[in-house]
Amino acid sequence: MIENKILLTDCPDDKGLIAKITNICYKHQLNIIHNNEFVDFETKHFFMRTELQGIFNEETLLADLAFSLPQGTNCRLIDSSRKKRIVILVTKEAHCLGDILMKTYYGGLDLEIAAVIGNHDSLRSLVERFDVPFHCVSHEHLTRIEHDKLLAEKIDEYHPDLIVLAKYMRVLNPEFVARYPNRVINIHHSFLPAFIGANPYKRAYERGVKIIGATAHFINNELDEGPIIMQNVINVDHTYSAEMMMKAGRDVEKTVLSRALDLAIHDRLFVFQNKTIVL
Amino acid sequence: MIENKILLTDCPDDKGLIAKITNICYKHQLNIIHNNEFVDFETKHFFMRTELQGIFNEETLLADLAFSLPQGTNCRLIDSSRKKRIVILVTKEAHCLGDILMKTYYGGLDLEIAAVIGNHDSLRSLVERFDVPFHCVSHEHLTRIEHDKLLAEKIDEYHPDLIVLAKYMRVLNPEFVARYPNRVINIHHSFLPAFIGANPYKRAYERGVKIIGATAHFINNELDEGPIIMQNVINVDHTYSAEMMMKAGRDVEKTVLSRALDLAIHDRLFVFQNKTIVL
Amino acid sequence: MIENKILLTDCPDDKGLIAKITNICYKHQLNIIHNNEFVDFETKHFFMRTELQGIFNEETLLADLAFSLPQGTNCRLIDSSRKKRIVILVTKEAHCLGDILMKTYYGGLDLEIAAVIGNHDSLRSLVERFDVPFHCVSHEHLTRIEHDKLLAEKIDEYHPDLIVLAKYMRVLNPEFVARYPNRVINIHHSFLPAFIGANPYKRAYERGVKIIGATAHFINNELDEGPIIMQNVINVDHTYSAEMMMKAGRDVEKTVLSRALDLAIHDRLFVFQNKTIVL
Amino acid sequence: MIENKILLTDCPDDKGLIAKITNICYKHQLNIIHNNEFVDFETKHFFMRTELQGIFNEETLLADLAFSLPQGTNCRLIDSSRKKRIVILVTKEAHCLGDILMKTYYGGLDLEIAAVIGNHDSLRSLVERFDVPFHCVSHEHLTRIEHDKLLAEKIDEYHPDLIVLAKYMRVLNPEFVARYPNRVINIHHSFLPAFIGANPYKRAYERGVKIIGATAHFINNELDEGPIIMQNVINVDHTYSAEMMMKAGRDVEKTVLSRALDLAIHDRLFVFQNKTIVL
Repeated sequence: MIENKILLTDCPDDKGLIAKITNICYKHQLNIIHNNEFVDFETKHFFMRTELQGIFNEETLLADLAFSLPQGTNCRLIDSSRKKRIVILVTKEAHCLGDILMKTYYGGLDLEIAAVIGNHDSLRSLVERFDVPFHCVSHEHLTRIEHDKLLAEKIDEYHPDLIVLAKYMRVLNPEFVARYPNRVINIHHSFLPAFIGANPYKRAYERGVKIIGATAHFINNELDEGPIIMQNVINVDHTYSAEMMMKAGRDVEKTVLSRALDLAIHDRLFVFQNKTIVL
Repeated sequence: MIENKILLTDCPDDKGLIAKITNICYKHQLNIIHNNEFVDFETKHFFMRTELQGIFNEETLLADLAFSLPQGTNCRLIDSSRKKRIVILVTKEAHCLGDILMKTYYGGLDLEIAAVIGNHDSLRSLVERFDVPFHCVSHEHLTRIEHDKLLAEKIDEYHPDLIVLAKYMRVLNPEFVARYPNRVINIHHSFLPAFIGANPYKRAYERGVKIIGATAHFINNELDEGPIIMQNVINVDHTYSAEMMMKAGRDVEKTVLSRALDLAIHDRLFVFQNKTIVL
Repeated sequence: MIENKILLTDCPDDKGLIAKITNICYKHQLNIIHNNEFVDFETKHFFMRTELQGIFNEETLLADLAFSLPQGTNCRLIDSSRKKRIVILVTKEAHCLGDILMKTYYGGLDLEIAAVIGNHDSLRSLVERFDVPFHCVSHEHLTRIEHDKLLAEKIDEYHPDLIVLAKYMRVLNPEFVARYPNRVINIHHSFLPAFIGANPYKRAYERGVKIIGATAHFINNELDEGPIIMQNVINVDHTYSAEMMMKAGRDVEKTVLSRALDLAIHDRLFVFQNKTIVL
Repeated sequence: MIENKILLTDCPDDKGLIAKITNICYKHQLNIIHNNEFVDFETKHFFMRTELQGIFNEETLLADLAFSLPQGTNCRLIDSSRKKRIVILVTKEAHCLGDILMKTYYGGLDLEIAAVIGNHDSLRSLVERFDVPFHCVSHEHLTRIEHDKLLAEKIDEYHPDLIVLAKYMRVLNPEFVARYPNRVINIHHSFLPAFIGANPYKRAYERGVKIIGATAHFINNELDEGPIIMQNVINVDHTYSAEMMMKAGRDVEKTVLSRALDLAIHDRLFVFQNKTIVL
């Protein structure tokens, strides 16, 4: 049966890598639909994303690749026909969540929302209108470690590919972060690294900036320091109060988050040394 | 003789300010060509820029305004037909300087470049091609205070309205800054407050940002913390080295600086509590 | 009782108009919260939008204005505390409708959706999830005149302030247009005047453009020729098929439409000689 | 001697093309520095741009490629160390010309300006300041055919790789266009296909658009219909007169033109069926 797969390869750079990989695909009689590659000359690392079509023997393909490519190669073969499953974490703000719900509803995002988990109950009604399970996992009377543990247990029930922090307004502890490496996408309401941390719109207002923005990134253990996936900005001026900036920023936040998510679910992101390569 | 003047008024907010000011103009039989006003509700401060046309008795107009408006009012009446004079400070990079020279040459910036001063001699040839005086005031073997003093002396020979730091790569001491309040415009090669200080492109590259930018601002005594006039950005991606970012950023830097300068020479900027109001 | 009103004035330009209007407001002891004015020097027409606060006697205020201002003056006094009511017309696409539903739900648009009317039934389920009435007014077996008449009857049941064409894919006849002057906002999926009419993404693809966009405008009797309210664009490249342009364009369309709607519901739009003035 | 070359390949799409080309490069012991490829699924055509480093035997490399690749393949091997030569055609406006002169001066554009030719003499002084030959080829008393013939003769004296129309305000006849296929880059002062032809800013003003733009394209025999290389836009509003649009548009025009030129001189453009593929 003809299948569509995505082959993600990264390895130390070497001569002839593209030739080797495409040759092996050719010998397996696979058709390359799309191919993109990138060499980072600073780290001397090679990245390639190949959309393949054909009749697959995954094991022999991966074995042939492993045999030909240098030590330290990562090869992953992904079934591009399987929809990615996500779990969304929220607090009280609806705009990013709402955009993902709506886009998933009309087919603008080709994914499955397995569940939404809030540390407050306020977004339950919105989520349930879209026939998606909502769970409230309150942080009250719990340490951060205890709360994050409950979150992780609830998340793991759904076996998501990705976890999306759609304005989840709490910092997650290192154990949680380590549990889902390069699988948790956050939206931060500033063009990082400006205004790391709390209240970026208030601080943008106080600084008198003429541009505000939003940043989607994978989380790591440094607050707002994880690999950046996508950023966008809009112009503001002296007539904007901090609240008006917040209102205007919402459209940027939601658009940046859903575009970043769209890249992730199509396996277009490599993470390497705290940066993303988008192929 | 009919003249064109710009009236800049700022004062503590109060009822009826627009009525009072426009009435006085009307009684003086002046025609309002353009009028813009802004009330900052946080600081309860009022700003108004009025383009006036008519036969002026400046003294009685200003006296009438002073009589009617609250204590703490600043009124300035500016002859909009007189070209602003600028002195440009540079180091070695030509792109911002070159854009101002070129725009002034073909009339894209309606100003007079009185002189260009460099702490190196490398841009002399470019400047002299445009028949503009160039002075090299080297910083070698001098303390910052000594060098800035020489600079100020050279600048003052030209009586400029504005001083433009067109990639002048040295920090100016507080005495220099205090000598020219809200008259020194700098271009910083990042979207402030991201990447304050040295090597912003290198740091942007290392952080893996997807957007880079530039900021034009008045200088004050905090490095890169003065009132922001204008900002702009462009998209970058993982294929950009730090050098490619620097190259791509040049067009943003020069455009942002010359637009900020265009606002300044048309008296469209108020500075208030470390922010600019652009009317 | 202290009220908030918006005064919209437009008239042939004359000396002293701002003074006259603000004086009258001042004599009525009204506080001007925001004021914006514009003179179009080509048509010699004056526009002013004034946010007023105070205890109102509307009749005497309007009478005083009528007495002072030139012939041909339009003055409207609008209660800014009353939410605008809109009726949305749709066909099959959900993204613009969905964004308005979602933003209204979480307070991002401060309006009331009175009803949604589709010429197909496909969006009923989405609309009803938000507890908004949905009506299907099918165009099948009807002439355009007959169908538009049914539409107008259904619309008029709800007495909307504005009618929003959220990807309503049919042309409306002149009688319908004349019934709601400057009250029908359309979103067109190109940066007008490029690609007027059908299939703009397909034509943009065929032309090989590097930028696509969307335009929100009031409708008039020339297809896609009405006064433009707002436009925005995004970059595309040779890798985009017509379908990918359509997908990428959806975020632009919905953002442009909801921002245009936000201007309209806050009475920030004047329409004059096929242009909008945004104050 | 180790050399840097760029291999440009385009051919009807087929299985294994990347493998074949990269294999041949590998067998010639060439190192692939950068590689980009694109398949246009509509036309079933394959494009690839490969930066190669090594010791070249051009003839055998091209012969091996010709032997392996399908009929209808175009392969070009370009010496990337040789600077491209351009001739610039102008009329009276200085901003696009000025930007290319200035960038070439400081190394922002890595090319050689062989000469500038104007149909007026007004830009001579600017050009000669940069030690570039300027020729005035007046169109007065000549038919279009006669004038274009004189132009072509003057151009051909300089053997340019590219001809840049930097606001050359005359239409060139088909014979001239045919003489330099895909070698003449024009800047048009609108976001094509909006406002094809004369006076785009005036027409943009009259239409009341909220965005204006510029388009760099290769010329062909349909006015403003050639393959688009790059476009960009800026926001305008009701306060802009046609003249203000023209002034604001200049920065967009010059930036778009010099970026398009930067792509062309680095051999990053394929032209296929009236579109550009940018690799």
